Amino acid sequence: MARGVTRMSGLFLHTLREDPADAEVISHKLLVRAGYVRRVAPGIYSWLPLGMKVLARVEAIIREEMDAIGGQEVHFPALLPKDPYEATGRWTEYGDALFRLKDRKKADYLLGPTHEEMFTLMVKGETSSYRDFPVILYQVQTKYRDEERPRAGILRGREFTMKDSYSFDLSDEALQASYDAHREAYQRIFARLGLEVQIVSAMSGAMGGSASEEFLAPCASGEDTYVRAPATGYAANVEAVTTPAPPEQSTEDKPEAVVYDTPDTPTIETLVAHVNGLGLGRTFTAADTLKNVMVKTRLPGSTEWTLLGVGVPGDREVDMKRLEASVSPAEVALLEDADFAANPFLTKGYIGPVGLAKNGVRYLVDPRIVTGTAWVTGADEPGRHVVDLVAGRDFTPDGTIEAAEVREGDPSPDGGGPLVAARGIEMGHIFQLGRKYAEALGLSVQGADGKPTTITMGSYGVGVTRAVAAITEQHADDKGLVWPAEVAPYAVHLVIAGKDPAQAEAADRIATGLADAGLEVLLDDRKASPGVKFADAELLGMPTTLTVGRGLANGVVEVTDRASGERREVPVDDVVAELAGLTGRA
Amino acid sequence: MARGVTRMSGLFLHTLREDPADAEVISHKLLVRAGYVRRVAPGIYSWLPLGMKVLARVEAIIREEMDAIGGQEVHFPALLPKDPYEATGRWTEYGDALFRLKDRKKADYLLGPTHEEMFTLMVKGETSSYRDFPVILYQVQTKYRDEERPRAGILRGREFTMKDSYSFDLSDEALQASYDAHREAYQRIFARLGLEVQIVSAMSGAMGGSASEEFLAPCASGEDTYVRAPATGYAANVEAVTTPAPPEQSTEDKPEAVVYDTPDTPTIETLVAHVNGLGLGRTFTAADTLKNVMVKTRLPGSTEWTLLGVGVPGDREVDMKRLEASVSPAEVALLEDADFAANPFLTKGYIGPVGLAKNGVRYLVDPRIVTGTAWVTGADEPGRHVVDLVAGRDFTPDGTIEAAEVREGDPSPDGGGPLVAARGIEMGHIFQLGRKYAEALGLSVQGADGKPTTITMGSYGVGVTRAVAAITEQHADDKGLVWPAEVAPYAVHLVIAGKDPAQAEAADRIATGLADAGLEVLLDDRKASPGVKFADAELLGMPTTLTVGRGLANGVVEVTDRASGERREVPVDDVVAELAGLTGRA
Repeated sequence: MARGVTRMSGLFLHTLREDPADAEVISHKLLVRAGYVRRVAPGIYSWLPLGMKVLARVEAIIREEMDAIGGQEVHFPALLPKDPYEATGRWTEYGDALFRLKDRKKADYLLGPTHEEMFTLMVKGETSSYRDFPVILYQVQTKYRDEERPRAGILRGREFTMKDSYSFDLSDEALQASYDAHREAYQRIFARLGLEVQIVSAMSGAMGGSASEEFLAPCASGEDTYVRAPATGYAANVEAVTTPAPPEQSTEDKPEAVVYDTPDTPTIETLVAHVNGLGLGRTFTAADTLKNVMVKTRLPGSTEWTLLGVGVPGDREVDMKRLEASVSPAEVALLEDADFAANPFLTKGYIGPVGLAKNGVRYLVDPRIVTGTAWVTGADEPGRHVVDLVAGRDFTPDGTIEAAEVREGDPSPDGGGPLVAARGIEMGHIFQLGRKYAEALGLSVQGADGKPTTITMGSYGVGVTRAVAAITEQHADDKGLVWPAEVAPYAVHLVIAGKDPAQAEAADRIATGLADAGLEVLLDDRKASPGVKFADAELLGMPTTLTVGRGLANGVVEVTDRASGERREVPVDDVVAELAGLTGRA
Repeated sequence: MARGVTRMSGLFLHTLREDPADAEVISHKLLVRAGYVRRVAPGIYSWLPLGMKVLARVEAIIREEMDAIGGQEVHFPALLPKDPYEATGRWTEYGDALFRLKDRKKADYLLGPTHEEMFTLMVKGETSSYRDFPVILYQVQTKYRDEERPRAGILRGREFTMKDSYSFDLSDEALQASYDAHREAYQRIFARLGLEVQIVSAMSGAMGGSASEEFLAPCASGEDTYVRAPATGYAANVEAVTTPAPPEQSTEDKPEAVVYDTPDTPTIETLVAHVNGLGLGRTFTAADTLKNVMVKTRLPGSTEWTLLGVGVPGDREVDMKRLEASVSPAEVALLEDADFAANPFLTKGYIGPVGLAKNGVRYLVDPRIVTGTAWVTGADEPGRHVVDLVAGRDFTPDGTIEAAEVREGDPSPDGGGPLVAARGIEMGHIFQLGRKYAEALGLSVQGADGKPTTITMGSYGVGVTRAVAAITEQHADDKGLVWPAEVAPYAVHLVIAGKDPAQAEAADRIATGLADAGLEVLLDDRKASPGVKFADAELLGMPTTLTVGRGLANGVVEVTDRASGERREVPVDDVVAELAGLTGRA
């Protein structure tokens, strides 16, 4: 049989009728049922022959597009010595997510979660002059992260493949050009993978939105929540959303702050009901209360925790992911009972800005809490709250922090009207690292002016194994997988429907013809019922199914499009020419 | 510039004039100097762009040949759970060579040194009937072994790439066919890699020579010693050589054993001199003495060591690698002072077979020590030896063991005359595993007769990263690397020798023409002296160098063959057609 034809009778494949017990998302269910991957341990998977073919196609597309922007492929070890990661502080910063081990000589090693340090050191070792730049290096490499909760099959694994690349430039403008080249390459990559992606801003703050963007594949099972303003096209992940501050108000016309007894008001809801019962002539809502959440933060490598009060309007929860992003690289944790015991001035349930200031606790507030706004909040005494505590008059926060949850309907930071929320899978990330790693590891070269120039870097990643799952999330249906043409393991799934030897002969002839035309063919030559074969064809998900069945007696075969389900009869003598034209890869 | 042309001005490459300080072998020196690999930690290397290209070509050749024998590619994790390796005993058997680690939940993991267990379990999970066989699965995967002494650059690393495959068959005959298919595929692979290999028998004993063979790349820096009999073609690694036993002799005509005082005879040499001075009317040589080496062995997973005496003719050393192979899977170690202290009957320097037997110590001897042979050996008393201690009369060993060194000139086990010794790099290994792993892990399917059938397996490996070094060991010269055509990063190294713009223009035109003809071209467009460029061309090792220099004025360019050094002038208009014909890949 010709190269390019795989007979299912010899294919190492065992499809399953039942979803795996631990599977929650469709990609996990289908990739396991269709025999593409198998679980070995939590977050650790093996790849079977069909899965390997998809993975190889994904990798080839990524390599082509990286080569097209001048990327040069290198390869770093996965097993890495501790030293460079200690120099940048990440040996500790990574916490429990880092797989650490010792060799037989008790030297410390880690399994690389990312390779910033290694790329930086490699470029430092091989270059000396401005003439050696710009450089873009990339690798397709196995990465390791000891996720606390690996989930969703290969969507969030502990061993996974990434393409990571780094750009090395002499100037900010050159970095921007490298960043833009990656941005465009990524758009081409995801288009070829058949992945719809939304580019979202991934960074708030000083550097501006363009310095870091994520490519999210919208889908309901995505772990990342993002928001967008349909009117302007603004899109950002939730961590990057900035809260527009309302205008400041005068503090002079505000009533005086008054402390009230508020027994049995453990929740915002009960507090609001109680205050509304005080007969103050106004109606209060949860948005009029100021909730003070106590956390503690710790800088990487430090053993000491510092108290932090976070004030948000009482109608909003603190979003821990946003809080984490805001305090990063410091760690953050909620206070435990022991912390309250150690700080007796913290009156649980009645903490207020005044008490925090009195005790020297750093206090950061949501940007909505501007000068002149009046709040119902804790009075630092058990069972008591204060009404009309005015910002800028009765308390002065140490600054603002993005920690409150973002909601659909919130105003877009760019003035683009109300935000709409959606979920997606993070498929790519492009990021202007700047000079952080170059400075930490001493990557400086002789500039055109003869003076030392610190290199500025960009960091760019694509999830390779994750892409296989994300494609499935976006394309599968209730019958099985539906592969886009460029990543399908085979272009044509050729089913011999009956037992008539003429059908098998015709199928062999067609398969050879298709293979000669450059199409890879999966030929179902098994001794199985047509029903089993059709169900497997739908489960396995090749773009086109070609059935050689009873119609052969009338000179026709049936062509089915997996995605649309459309079927049509084609004369057996035309089918090779027609499919070669229809489904040939670019 | 066309695809297929790489300009050296933009290539991430930094060649070195000096050999790296830690390099001993030529592949290590040259691959580092020519900028193909870089050391990250002991036995752990990064690959630079030129190295990646060679590696990719090696991998592609291996995949093609594996696919051609029906191999199906899969991929296992490198990070593996402990359980399966405990089931087969290898969690402990591997000793310090296994990288072990714990995840955040304190579960035990290892970095896979080989994947027998995983392949076996995968096939167990996906098959149920004899109809699912035969199966050949392979992967190209990163392996980890915590070598005690990583050496020679990528020749013996701690993180390295291997192609490993496994065959799964229903019968011994089918296993033999899978084995033979691999043997032939490996011969094709090594031929295409440009590697001269010697196939050597890797197993002595009951299963016979054909059940395990190694493909050694002969070279002086090889770690494996093998022997061959030029007359018959017999070749075996030293561990696999069996010692022909001389015919047994009668014990009746031998003189009686007599014990002599032999003060100050700490070595075989001094012992022989002393005995020859006793006036016994005979001349003794070292070959007449019986040296008893005390070791201890320990079975995998056991904590207890067992004493073992090994008797070899006094003119030979014990070869620890042969001894290790003979007692495997048990470990073996020489006795320490504490062991002698714990066993006071062991009279160091004067140990004899009689004392060992008296004290119940297992005693195995070299096959040359047959019944009727008489020996000078220890008398189990300080300062005393016995002469004419006859095997089968005065002592009876518990069996024989292959532990004595093999020497050039020793008789070939197949009667093929004296052995010749050589050194090589182990590049491949094919091995009939049989049912060991299938039994340990329960891989049994329904046979054609309806009864359970245990699958029989073969195991086959090729060193992928090692191949890059081995090719270098066989092909380099004092000027640099010399790549065989199929693995060279570029087919043509095109040097612009002078500053005349006409040369650069012609070179661009030629490069484009070669690329259009399917040849990859490295174009040296740097602002460097011709001397630097030619030296780099020789160091980097592309098969053909094409120089566009002064001759261009006369319409000729120069073509140099890297391997032979031959140079010739070719008309500039003919050079593309000629090189496309000469150096095109198959």
